[in-house]
Amino acid sequence: MEFALLEKITGPRDLDDLSYAQLDELAAECRAAILKRVDALGGHLASNLGVVEATIALHRVFDSPRDHIIFDTSHQCYTHKLVTGRAYGFIDDGRMNEVSGFTNPEESEHDWFRCGHTSTSISLACGFAKARDVLGQHHNVVAFIGDGCFSGGEAFEGLDNAATFDSNLIIVLNDNEMSIAEDQGSIYENFAELRATGGASQDNYFKSMGLDYRYVENGNSIPDLIEAFEQVKDIDHPIVVHIHTLKGKGDPWAEANKEAAHSVKRKTGSSEGETYTEITRRRMLEKMADDPSIVVVNAATPGGAGLTPEFRAAAGDRYVDVGICEQHAVTFSAALARGGAKPVFFVASTFLQRAYDQIVQDLALNQSPATVLVFQAGFSSIDATHLGVFDLAYTGNVPGLTCLAPSTAEEYLAMLDWSINQAERPVVIRVPDKVAHGPEVTFSASDIARFETRRIGSKVALVALGPTIELAETVADELAGEYGIVPTLISATTFSALDRKLLFALEGSHDLVVSLENGVLYGGFGEKIARVLGPSPLRVLCFGGTKEFVDRVSTEELHQRYHLEPSSLAADIARIL
Amino acid sequence: MEFALLEKITGPRDLDDLSYAQLDELAAECRAAILKRVDALGGHLASNLGVVEATIALHRVFDSPRDHIIFDTSHQCYTHKLVTGRAYGFIDDGRMNEVSGFTNPEESEHDWFRCGHTSTSISLACGFAKARDVLGQHHNVVAFIGDGCFSGGEAFEGLDNAATFDSNLIIVLNDNEMSIAEDQGSIYENFAELRATGGASQDNYFKSMGLDYRYVENGNSIPDLIEAFEQVKDIDHPIVVHIHTLKGKGDPWAEANKEAAHSVKRKTGSSEGETYTEITRRRMLEKMADDPSIVVVNAATPGGAGLTPEFRAAAGDRYVDVGICEQHAVTFSAALARGGAKPVFFVASTFLQRAYDQIVQDLALNQSPATVLVFQAGFSSIDATHLGVFDLAYTGNVPGLTCLAPSTAEEYLAMLDWSINQAERPVVIRVPDKVAHGPEVTFSASDIARFETRRIGSKVALVALGPTIELAETVADELAGEYGIVPTLISATTFSALDRKLLFALEGSHDLVVSLENGVLYGGFGEKIARVLGPSPLRVLCFGGTKEFVDRVSTEELHQRYHLEPSSLAADIARIL
Repeated sequence: MEFALLEKITGPRDLDDLSYAQLDELAAECRAAILKRVDALGGHLASNLGVVEATIALHRVFDSPRDHIIFDTSHQCYTHKLVTGRAYGFIDDGRMNEVSGFTNPEESEHDWFRCGHTSTSISLACGFAKARDVLGQHHNVVAFIGDGCFSGGEAFEGLDNAATFDSNLIIVLNDNEMSIAEDQGSIYENFAELRATGGASQDNYFKSMGLDYRYVENGNSIPDLIEAFEQVKDIDHPIVVHIHTLKGKGDPWAEANKEAAHSVKRKTGSSEGETYTEITRRRMLEKMADDPSIVVVNAATPGGAGLTPEFRAAAGDRYVDVGICEQHAVTFSAALARGGAKPVFFVASTFLQRAYDQIVQDLALNQSPATVLVFQAGFSSIDATHLGVFDLAYTGNVPGLTCLAPSTAEEYLAMLDWSINQAERPVVIRVPDKVAHGPEVTFSASDIARFETRRIGSKVALVALGPTIELAETVADELAGEYGIVPTLISATTFSALDRKLLFALEGSHDLVVSLENGVLYGGFGEKIARVLGPSPLRVLCFGGTKEFVDRVSTEELHQRYHLEPSSLAADIARIL
Repeated sequence: MEFALLEKITGPRDLDDLSYAQLDELAAECRAAILKRVDALGGHLASNLGVVEATIALHRVFDSPRDHIIFDTSHQCYTHKLVTGRAYGFIDDGRMNEVSGFTNPEESEHDWFRCGHTSTSISLACGFAKARDVLGQHHNVVAFIGDGCFSGGEAFEGLDNAATFDSNLIIVLNDNEMSIAEDQGSIYENFAELRATGGASQDNYFKSMGLDYRYVENGNSIPDLIEAFEQVKDIDHPIVVHIHTLKGKGDPWAEANKEAAHSVKRKTGSSEGETYTEITRRRMLEKMADDPSIVVVNAATPGGAGLTPEFRAAAGDRYVDVGICEQHAVTFSAALARGGAKPVFFVASTFLQRAYDQIVQDLALNQSPATVLVFQAGFSSIDATHLGVFDLAYTGNVPGLTCLAPSTAEEYLAMLDWSINQAERPVVIRVPDKVAHGPEVTFSASDIARFETRRIGSKVALVALGPTIELAETVADELAGEYGIVPTLISATTFSALDRKLLFALEGSHDLVVSLENGVLYGGFGEKIARVLGPSPLRVLCFGGTKEFVDRVSTEELHQRYHLEPSSLAADIARIL
């Protein structure tokens, strides 16, 4: 495909002179460009294909960046990037990495926020509108939200506040009848009724919240959208423009496979081999067949957690996708557990942080014996909006929460079995990234604060949390081979408690304790060792991530940066000794 | 007042034989009992006075604990406690402390959860209902919510999920036309319309969410309530029962002063002297008069933050109470800041944790230059549901967040001035509990990672965070007087960064570094010092709270427990040296 129009567009005002026919051509070019990028890098496909026309119409009608357009979660911003001077990130093979998959003010003056977690756009729009008002400015503020983003409670909080404004605030609801997987929650029933009645049904959710409202049936028609947006431009009060779009539009595969096409992984060529999501799914199906009180809970991200359509069908009523609302998911799981059921909440590290208060209050304070499986934790090359490196701190420091970090599949499954079957305490299990195998093991409550000595040495003891034991083993070999130091090797599979007895027993025979963790050091695992051993003559050296937001940095580079490589780590240790 | 009926009630089934006239008498006794307790201990007054009849009717109709009644936030549970065998906590002067102000399963089988943070009851009810269904049980699950609890997004998340249930789930909305202060947010307009139309208005919020609905105009009439509850008892689907009550009912002062009477402090006799809320209010009014871009944000707790009705009137449009929704408040503040305004968010430590994700994503990742003032932080004798000891960890470890802990009013005001006027970074200021004074100081960006040496000594260095410098000074005197040790004394007024140069300079002349902090050690301030000094020969000893939920334990006892007293602290240090 040629990108004749796209190549000429340097900014949204270049849309002004295009005819409707040309705008349709542009839409086709945008789709081709989106497909080209996703094919090369992976990314949000169906979500972006559905909003090509809406984005073109927004930029034709509103005057960005004077008018502020804020994309919820910003995973649907590809066409926005295409028409705001960043087409090279889609059509130029050599420049794709210059553009991220999310909005970022450092990338363009047309981007107002770095977003990646859902349901914040209305709150952001309220803030920008209020700033405009107190500063005596006059421009439009537009929140663009949809594709499942409405089930997060903050969207309600934003609407609840937005409706009290007596100034311009435009909320575009992109209703594509989908979330990441199927829509979950009754609010989408209301949207369906509004669609069925052309926006005229009784008990309109938005009107019930005091908001003005209009409906656009063909949300993939540029003329219809331009007409609607022109009518609300410069409006003097908040309004919701509900547009009905087709997720995946223009790509037959994406239209037919909306869930799979929501976000597409980069093609790597190599098969990934056995994964923890497969292992978990298999074990959960076995356990659920034996025990009708097990309930699997998910917050609209079944794909990342390996909860395939087949698993969901097999689990039936005992699979509950609550929509994108981790707060509810945690509180719901807490009550399931206190009510005698056995909930297992599958969640990504970056999203569990949205329920920190519920972890503290509903899980930990109430000692609700739920199991939380944290996926996608640790260093990765992901966008700064989706980092999985903070959970060691935001779970590991909460009183009454048992936090486990298995290093092998055998340890993981033993922990999972134990956690589901016990009824005393909430348990967080940090699922590793890559599958490793070890001997069969058992797990019980007495192991919660127990580290395991794998090799006995002297002078230096390596204490490795979870999967970092693999690195520790290589470092131990390197220390022995290169420096003649035979270190003690300790595997820690818990980060909510320390094995103090084992640590204190190192005194005398050791000079240095080295901790390794797969997350940020601040508030993490090693700091606790440093504090506990602080008064002792043992010195402590902690390895892990520094306190920073890293944006699409390869894990190799991160390991280099944090000295989490065998040779540099061994050298650091030798230098200190 | 005599408590003739209350004294005979051992549990809810004792209500069954009472006539309506006797139930009214019982309601009068409950009011007297509530007033007696609040007069002695303080507590939630007006909120509880308004729901006496509703609680009596619930317990007459439903069969607790077989039927599960869950009180949102549980601050309106006093009558529930009175009729479930805990009247002694209200009417027996010697036993009041045996009963807390919130529900607690350890106190009674009629209490299902420890709650204290708002908007979780519907999610909890969903969990209990789902557990009932998978376990094949058959009982009613009732969520009792209101008094401002609807503006938290989790209530929406709960409703959104609840409406998808095809089994029993009853949501009682106690609509008293109030939050803690005035109701905030458009949802309350819908409630007003529903009241005005006897529940018949178009665009019913609950019906828009697919929920069955009924309205009870006189929510203080026991017969009306009993009739309504009997009609929904054993219902086979979710329903909302909207009851209209009078906050403060029965006490003329509480009825006339609903905000002041929402929660009443224990009478202490002594005047409290100058407070940080007064100091802040004064300074903010001065600054707001000079700078029209300053906006004060609050999430429905103006009282605790000293934002008096007079302040709110003076601030006008530049005071925004968003309702009880800290997530929105943080995101809103972030966008205000990125939009060029100068937001200052007033919030309690225990409630700010509800916006951890927004702190990470919207404030820190986006470097939104908002100011967050954290009140009620540190050790206190408060209920376990409202602890202010976790913020050192949940803010201090977030990349890009500047976290300050002033030790004097002068430092605090210098930080506040600087933070509001700068436009580079988000700033959290942990406001101390008790006012202390020191020399006038200035504050600038170069002070963010700077500690200050107050006394130069040798052997041991005390590093005190924020207001703990006062304790450190006394300890220093004690060490000098009792043990002949003259310690170095260092004041740290930041906990997001360490003054590494100053710390490393202690090597050689010192053997031990002692950290002091007014919060939990896990993930806190001292651990970072222990990690950074871990490889050095300096030993480190950290003082602060352990990882535990403490429930109404006096600060004196906590200081004893944590060795945060001059003599025990000095003895600990001397022993180690």
